[in-house]
Amino acid sequence: MPTETLNTNITTLGDARIPSPVHKRVHGTNGFAFVSEADRVLIDVTVNRACKPLADGTLPPSYELAGPRERIYFDPSKLKCALVTCGGLCPGLNDIIRSIVLELHYGYGVRNISGVRYGLRGFIPRYGYDMMDLTPSEVVNIHERGGVVIGSSRGPQDVEEIVDTLERMNIGILFMIGGGGTLQAATHLADAILQRGLRTSIVGVPKTIDNDIYMVSRSFGFDTAVEVSTRAIVSASNEAEGYPNGIGLIKLMGRHSGFIAATATLAQQDVNFVLIPEVDFDLDGPQGLLHTLEVRLADRGHAVIVVAEGAGQKFFAGQAKELDLSGNVKLKDIGLFLKQEIIAYFTERNIQISIKYIDPSYMIRSLPANANDRVFCNFLGRNAVHAGMAGKTDLLIGNCNNHFVHVPMKLLAGKRKHVDPKGMLWRSALEATGQPSLKND
Amino acid sequence: MPTETLNTNITTLGDARIPSPVHKRVHGTNGFAFVSEADRVLIDVTVNRACKPLADGTLPPSYELAGPRERIYFDPSKLKCALVTCGGLCPGLNDIIRSIVLELHYGYGVRNISGVRYGLRGFIPRYGYDMMDLTPSEVVNIHERGGVVIGSSRGPQDVEEIVDTLERMNIGILFMIGGGGTLQAATHLADAILQRGLRTSIVGVPKTIDNDIYMVSRSFGFDTAVEVSTRAIVSASNEAEGYPNGIGLIKLMGRHSGFIAATATLAQQDVNFVLIPEVDFDLDGPQGLLHTLEVRLADRGHAVIVVAEGAGQKFFAGQAKELDLSGNVKLKDIGLFLKQEIIAYFTERNIQISIKYIDPSYMIRSLPANANDRVFCNFLGRNAVHAGMAGKTDLLIGNCNNHFVHVPMKLLAGKRKHVDPKGMLWRSALEATGQPSLKND
Amino acid sequence: MPTETLNTNITTLGDARIPSPVHKRVHGTNGFAFVSEADRVLIDVTVNRACKPLADGTLPPSYELAGPRERIYFDPSKLKCALVTCGGLCPGLNDIIRSIVLELHYGYGVRNISGVRYGLRGFIPRYGYDMMDLTPSEVVNIHERGGVVIGSSRGPQDVEEIVDTLERMNIGILFMIGGGGTLQAATHLADAILQRGLRTSIVGVPKTIDNDIYMVSRSFGFDTAVEVSTRAIVSASNEAEGYPNGIGLIKLMGRHSGFIAATATLAQQDVNFVLIPEVDFDLDGPQGLLHTLEVRLADRGHAVIVVAEGAGQKFFAGQAKELDLSGNVKLKDIGLFLKQEIIAYFTERNIQISIKYIDPSYMIRSLPANANDRVFCNFLGRNAVHAGMAGKTDLLIGNCNNHFVHVPMKLLAGKRKHVDPKGMLWRSALEATGQPSLKND
Amino acid sequence: MPTETLNTNITTLGDARIPSPVHKRVHGTNGFAFVSEADRVLIDVTVNRACKPLADGTLPPSYELAGPRERIYFDPSKLKCALVTCGGLCPGLNDIIRSIVLELHYGYGVRNISGVRYGLRGFIPRYGYDMMDLTPSEVVNIHERGGVVIGSSRGPQDVEEIVDTLERMNIGILFMIGGGGTLQAATHLADAILQRGLRTSIVGVPKTIDNDIYMVSRSFGFDTAVEVSTRAIVSASNEAEGYPNGIGLIKLMGRHSGFIAATATLAQQDVNFVLIPEVDFDLDGPQGLLHTLEVRLADRGHAVIVVAEGAGQKFFAGQAKELDLSGNVKLKDIGLFLKQEIIAYFTERNIQISIKYIDPSYMIRSLPANANDRVFCNFLGRNAVHAGMAGKTDLLIGNCNNHFVHVPMKLLAGKRKHVDPKGMLWRSALEATGQPSLKND
Repeated sequence: MPTETLNTNITTLGDARIPSPVHKRVHGTNGFAFVSEADRVLIDVTVNRACKPLADGTLPPSYELAGPRERIYFDPSKLKCALVTCGGLCPGLNDIIRSIVLELHYGYGVRNISGVRYGLRGFIPRYGYDMMDLTPSEVVNIHERGGVVIGSSRGPQDVEEIVDTLERMNIGILFMIGGGGTLQAATHLADAILQRGLRTSIVGVPKTIDNDIYMVSRSFGFDTAVEVSTRAIVSASNEAEGYPNGIGLIKLMGRHSGFIAATATLAQQDVNFVLIPEVDFDLDGPQGLLHTLEVRLADRGHAVIVVAEGAGQKFFAGQAKELDLSGNVKLKDIGLFLKQEIIAYFTERNIQISIKYIDPSYMIRSLPANANDRVFCNFLGRNAVHAGMAGKTDLLIGNCNNHFVHVPMKLLAGKRKHVDPKGMLWRSALEATGQPSLKND
Repeated sequence: MPTETLNTNITTLGDARIPSPVHKRVHGTNGFAFVSEADRVLIDVTVNRACKPLADGTLPPSYELAGPRERIYFDPSKLKCALVTCGGLCPGLNDIIRSIVLELHYGYGVRNISGVRYGLRGFIPRYGYDMMDLTPSEVVNIHERGGVVIGSSRGPQDVEEIVDTLERMNIGILFMIGGGGTLQAATHLADAILQRGLRTSIVGVPKTIDNDIYMVSRSFGFDTAVEVSTRAIVSASNEAEGYPNGIGLIKLMGRHSGFIAATATLAQQDVNFVLIPEVDFDLDGPQGLLHTLEVRLADRGHAVIVVAEGAGQKFFAGQAKELDLSGNVKLKDIGLFLKQEIIAYFTERNIQISIKYIDPSYMIRSLPANANDRVFCNFLGRNAVHAGMAGKTDLLIGNCNNHFVHVPMKLLAGKRKHVDPKGMLWRSALEATGQPSLKND
Repeated sequence: MPTETLNTNITTLGDARIPSPVHKRVHGTNGFAFVSEADRVLIDVTVNRACKPLADGTLPPSYELAGPRERIYFDPSKLKCALVTCGGLCPGLNDIIRSIVLELHYGYGVRNISGVRYGLRGFIPRYGYDMMDLTPSEVVNIHERGGVVIGSSRGPQDVEEIVDTLERMNIGILFMIGGGGTLQAATHLADAILQRGLRTSIVGVPKTIDNDIYMVSRSFGFDTAVEVSTRAIVSASNEAEGYPNGIGLIKLMGRHSGFIAATATLAQQDVNFVLIPEVDFDLDGPQGLLHTLEVRLADRGHAVIVVAEGAGQKFFAGQAKELDLSGNVKLKDIGLFLKQEIIAYFTERNIQISIKYIDPSYMIRSLPANANDRVFCNFLGRNAVHAGMAGKTDLLIGNCNNHFVHVPMKLLAGKRKHVDPKGMLWRSALEATGQPSLKND
Repeated sequence: MPTETLNTNITTLGDARIPSPVHKRVHGTNGFAFVSEADRVLIDVTVNRACKPLADGTLPPSYELAGPRERIYFDPSKLKCALVTCGGLCPGLNDIIRSIVLELHYGYGVRNISGVRYGLRGFIPRYGYDMMDLTPSEVVNIHERGGVVIGSSRGPQDVEEIVDTLERMNIGILFMIGGGGTLQAATHLADAILQRGLRTSIVGVPKTIDNDIYMVSRSFGFDTAVEVSTRAIVSASNEAEGYPNGIGLIKLMGRHSGFIAATATLAQQDVNFVLIPEVDFDLDGPQGLLHTLEVRLADRGHAVIVVAEGAGQKFFAGQAKELDLSGNVKLKDIGLFLKQEIIAYFTERNIQISIKYIDPSYMIRSLPANANDRVFCNFLGRNAVHAGMAGKTDLLIGNCNNHFVHVPMKLLAGKRKHVDPKGMLWRSALEATGQPSLKND
C-alpha cells in the first residue's frame, strides 16, 4: 500500500465543547474509555515498513481511531439528523440504520431523526417523497429483514438542491450510506456545505458488497455475500457432476475486484476455474480457457467455473459503452458471454456438453446480514454517530487492522481496492482450483 | 378426477412363491404386517363419488397398496438389480438410490446392485460407461449431497439396445427414476422385455419437481423446491420494496403445471401476481398484466410477480418450435419475455421502474432434500424394492391419499396433473395475491 | 382405526341464510366452488374397510368437508370475533392467527377482531389484560417470527367466567388454538354457551407439535419440528463419532406418542436406538438397552440414541406424580434418567465412555414454521373462519386423507393418536436403526 | 497488551536449505511472493504505543509473519507427518485437517501423512488404535461434516511414550490441534524431542471455540459459534415474550472468557442481561440480578438472559472442586444454578413466572464451519504446513491484526485472552442490553 504520503487528517466543523452524555448509559462510568484525538492506528503493520519513516523522525501513516469522544460538537437536544442510502442492496443496510438510530437516541438523546426516502431523490422536492420518521420502535426489528426500509435509488442529484433541503430542514448530521459514487457525492456535499458556511456534518458509511473500498480492510455485507455464494457453487458443482461433460458456470458479484469470487472459491473448494477482473485471461489458443476446459472435461468429465462480473471486459472492447443511472459504465455480461462462447466452442468440435448458468446476485444482496456482519454493522453505525456528534465531517467510517477508524473521504478519490495477484488470497485461490495461467504467452 | 374407467391392474412376471425374508430384520416378526393383494386404496375419497359405483355393484376405483409381500418372486441370492436416473436434477434423487440399495441389501439380502451411469446412455455400449457398483457403504451418506451420484442425462436411447444390455447383464429388476418421458420409455421397455420372454421387472419412481404426475398426489423434491422458492420470493420482495417503482420478477419451475408457483405464493405471501400455465392471462388491454401492474405501482410503489416457466406460452405462438434432447418442446423463456415487455411498456410511458429478474431453478433442483422429502423418498425407494421383489412390473410407486400405491405405468400415457383453476389451491393463491383476472373479456 | 361407530355430525348455531361474500375477492365468481353440506370425506380409504358398511346399506364413516359455504350464519358487518392460543409454543401459531385475521377481514369483511392475551387468562378480568386489536397491518408479517404474538399460558380457567367475558364482549366466533386440554375446555365452553342460549361459535384449531391429535392425520408445526430435530441428530452423531465410546443422546418431543422421534429417525438415519412411548423396552438384562448399547460400543465404537420425552415412564413408577398448571401429569425426565443410568452402568464396568446429552425442545418449538407448515396453517386458519361464519360450533379443523375437514370436538374426548407398533412408520424406523427388541422375554 | 517484554522468537530445528517446491503449483512463478524471516507484524498497532520503543532505538514487539519460505528444512520425498486433535469438538476441525493434508500433498509433495486416532491416546500403544492414512481423496469432502474424522479425546498422556511413538514412526512434523492444555503438552513434547536430539517439529493450531487464546486475535470456530448462538437467543426471546413473566435463559460457551456471550448479544440484540466470567455480578441485594430481573418483569413482562458457562463461579465457592479428564477444573453449572435461584426467588414472592432454559453447546460445537471460518481454517492449516516444512518448532499459528503469524508456544504459558470490561466489545454489549451494574456497592 502506498501509504506514506497520505493525508489522513479529518475535517471538523469546529471545537467540540459539549461534554458527551454517552457514557451515562453504561454503568461504572468512571472507567469509561473515551477516545482521544491522539489515538491513531497504523495503516501498515509490517515492522520494516512501519518503522522506516520513524528513522527519519516522521510518524508512519495512521488513521484517527473511531469511537466516542469526551466532548461533542452538537447539542443533542436541538440536533436534527438524517440518513440516506444509495445504490444497490447490500446485506446489513437495515443494521446500519438501526444502530445509527439507536445510538443517536439512547446514547446521545437525539430525538429528531429522518430517513430520506429512495436515495438522493428523497432530497429533491419535485419527486415528492416525504421523510420517514425514524424512532427506536420503528427500527428495532428491521435487521431481521433484507433490503432497506427507507428505500434506495441510483444516480446523482443536484448538489445545491440537496444542500437547500438540508438547510431548510436544519439537518446537523447527514449519514450517507453508499458506494464509491455516493461517497464522491458526499465529499462534494461537504464542500458545498462548508462554502455556504453551514454547520452540517457529512459522515459516510461505505457500502460495497464487493469489498473494494480503497484503504479499508472490510466492508459490510461481504461476509454474508461470500457465505451465500458458496451455496451457488455447491449447486453448480452438483449440476456439473450430474451430467456427462457437465459444466457449472456461476457469475458472482465483483465489478472491479474479485474478492467475492476468490474468497468464495476458498470457502467452497469445488471450483476448477476462477476468473476475476484483476487477472487477465485468454479464451482462445492453447493456454486459453476454452482449450483448457476441453482438456479438463476429457480428463475429469465435469468442471465448475466462477467468474466475477467484472472479469474479461476486454472481450467487449469494440462495443459501445452504456452508462447506468449512476453514470457507471454498464458492464457487459461476462457470464452470458462465456456461456455462449463455451457452447459455440464445443458445438463446433461436436462435443456434447451440459452447461448450467447460475447468477445468484439478486438473491444474495437482498438477504439479511449474517451474525458476523450484524456485529460489524452495529459498530460501523455507532462509530458513525460518534464521529458526527464530535463535529467531524467529510469522513467515512472504515476498518483497518481490526480497528474502526476515521478515513477522510477525499482519500478515496475514486480509487478502489483490488485483489493482489501476488498476494495470499489469490495464491490460495489458485491452489484451491489448480488452474493454469490461462494466458498464451 | 375421471377415475371410473381406469385400469389399475398391475402386471406381474409370474407367481410370487418365495417366502420373503424382509421381516427378519425387524424384531417381533410374528406381528409383521405384510401387505396382501387385496389391500387397495380408494382413489377418490369423497363419499358421494366413492359410493356411487358401489350402488351399481361395482367397486370404486382404487390402487393396489404398496409394501412388502409375504411371498416374493425373485431369489435374492441370485438376483442382480440396476438403477438408472434420467432427466433433470431433483432434490431427493440420492435418497431414492440410497433407500433402494439399503432395502435390497439389508431387507432382502441382494448383493449385486449396479448404478447405470448418466441415464439411459449408460446402457449403450458405444458410450463406454462402466456400471457403478452400489453397496451400502457406498450410498450411506449420499443423501447429504444434492445432485445424483450415478449421473443423469436427457434423451431416449434405442429400446432394443437397452434390453440387450439388461439381458447380457442378467438384470432381474431395473429401477427407473425419471419424469414423464422416462416412464413412457419404461413402459416400452417392459413390453419389449415381455415380448422377448425375459424375466426382468421394470419399476418406476416418478421424478418431477413440478409435482405434475397424473393420478399421483405428490412427487419427491416438490416440498424442498417450494421451501427454497420462498427464499427467492423474499429476495424479490426486498428488491421491489427497496426502489421507487421496484418490480421483483421470479421465474419458478413448472413446465406444464403451476404447483410450485401457486404453493410458494401461499407459503410466502409477498406476491402480487402469480402466473401459471393452467390459467390464461393477457398482457395488453385494460385488464392485462401490464396495465394492471401500472395501476399497482401507482398505488403501492412496488410489485412482486411469480411466473411459472410454462405460463404464457401463447405469446410465442408464431415462433418455430425447438426440441430438447429428450424430444420435449423447449419452452420459450417467459421470464425474460415478461422482463422485456415490462421494460418496453414503462419506457414507452416514460415511467422509470427498477426491475430485478430472478431465476433460481438450478439453485433449487441441485439441493439435497429437506427432512420431509427425505422421509418420503425413503418410503418410495423401499416400496419400489418391495414391488420389484414381488415380480411386479410396468408400474410406478405413487402416493395417493397418504398411502403408497402401485400405479400401472400405462395409466399415465403422457398425461399430466394440473392445478385446478376452480380448486382450493388456486383460489387460495388468488386470495393471497389479490390479483384480478388479468383477462380482457 | 375404529371408525365405524363414530358420530361425526357437526353442531350448528342455526340455519345459515346469509349469502357469503367470500367469492367476491376472487375473479371468475361464476365458477367459484362453494362446499355443500353433502361433501364428505371418507375416513378409512382402504377398499375393503370402506366398502363393507355399504354392503349393509349404510354409508362408511366420513367427515364433513371444510371450506367456504354459499350461505353463512353471521352478518359480517356486525360480527365480533376473538382468538386465543393456549399451552406450549409451536411453529405456525402466528401463521394461524394471521390467516384467520386476513380471511375474516378480506374474505368476509369482518372488522372487529380481538386477540385474547396470554391464553385463557386473558378472559379473566382479575388478571387485567387488555384485548389486542388484530388488523391486517398488525398481522401481515408475524409469520416470519416464531413464538406467538398474542401470548399464551398454561392451565384452565373458570368456564363461566370465560362465557361472561364472551357475552359481555358480544363475541360471535371464538377461535381456540390449543392442545388436547384446550380442546376439552373448548367443548365445555360450547356446551355452556348453548345452555345460556348464546349464539357464539367455538372453533378449534388443534395444536400439538407431537402430531398426536386423535383421528387427525397431521397437525401444524410437526413438519418443522421434524426438520429441526434432524439437526440435533446430526450434532449428536458428530459428537458420538468424535470420541472413543462416544454416545449421543437426544431427547425429542413426544409426550404420549413417538411421531417426532420416529420420523426424525427416518429423515436422518444416523440413529442406532429410537425409544418411544408406544413401545416398551427394558434397561437391564441381556436384551435390555444398556447391555445392547455395550455390545454396540464394543462393535462400532459409538452410538446415537433418540428418546421421545414420554418413553420409558414405567421406570418412574414408584415416584410421586406431579401436575403442571394445565393439570397434565408432569413427565419425569427420561433423557436425564437415561444419561445417569448409562453413566452408572459403564462406570460400574470400568468402561470409559463419552456421553453428550442434547435437549433441543425449546429451540424447536419457538421457531417460525417452514414453508410446508406455512401453507398448511394458511388452510387451517381460513377453513376455521369458513366453519365459524357458517354458524358451526363445537368443532375443530382437521386434515384427513389430504382434505381439510370438520371434526366434532367431542369425538376426541381426551383420546390421542399413537404410532402403530406394527405399522409402516415404526417398521421403517426399526429398519433404519437396526435395533433389536430391547425386551427380555 | 503487555507486549514489550515478549520473547517472540521461533525455535528452528536447523537451517532451511532445500529450495521450496511450493510455488510450482501456481502459475507465474517468477512473481511468487515467498516470506522472508525479516517479515514481521506489529502486535500493537496504535501509533503511540508502537512508536514509543522506537524512540529508544528498539523495535516494537512483533511476530514473525507466517507463509511459505523460499527454502525448507525437510525433504518432502522422505518426510512423514502426523496430525492429532485433542479436546472438545469445534467447527472447522475437519477443515484444518483437510488443508494440512492438501498443502502437504499438493504443495510440497509429501506422501506419508498419518491421522492419530482419538487425541493423544492414539500415540499410546496400549490403547491399540491404528493410525489413519490421510490422503487427498480421503479428506477432500470432510469439511462438509461437523465433528472430527480422526477422533479426539480429553486428557494428557505420558510425554515420553508419545515421543517414543514419534521416534518409532519417524515423524518429521507433528501438527497438534487443541486448546490451552494441548498446547502446553505440545511445548513439553517439543522440549523432550530436542533433548533426545530428534528432528521432529511440533506445530500447534490453537483450538478454542471461546476465542480466548492469549495474544491471538481470533481462533477458528468462534464465528460459527456466534452465528448459531444467535438462533438460541431468538428462541429464548420467543419463549419469553410468549408467556406472562416469561424468562428465556441461555447458557453459552465461554469457560474463562465471555467473547461468545458478548458477541452473540451484539449480533442478536434481544438480550436484557448478559453475564460473563470477566465481570462480577451479585444475585441478591437491591442491585443484584434477581431484584433487577423482578423490576424488569414488572416493567416489561419478559426478560432474556445470556450467561457464559464460566460466569458467576464465585457462587460455588464453598463447594469441592472436581477435575475433568484433562485436569481442568470442572465448572459448576451456572445455567442450572441461575434457573433454580430465579425459580426460588419468585416462588418465595409468590410471583408466577415461566422460565425456559436453553443450553445449545453440543448443538453448536458439532457443526461444520461457516464460510468465514472455512476460509480462516484453510489459511491456518496451510500456514501450519509452511512453518513445519521450514523446520520451525514449538510454535503455533496465530492471527494478529489480520495477518497470520508464528507465535512461540511458550508465550502462552497457560495465559488466556479476556474480554476487556472497559473495551469496545463489552461497552457495546452493555449498550445493547441496557443492563445496570448488577453490583451492590
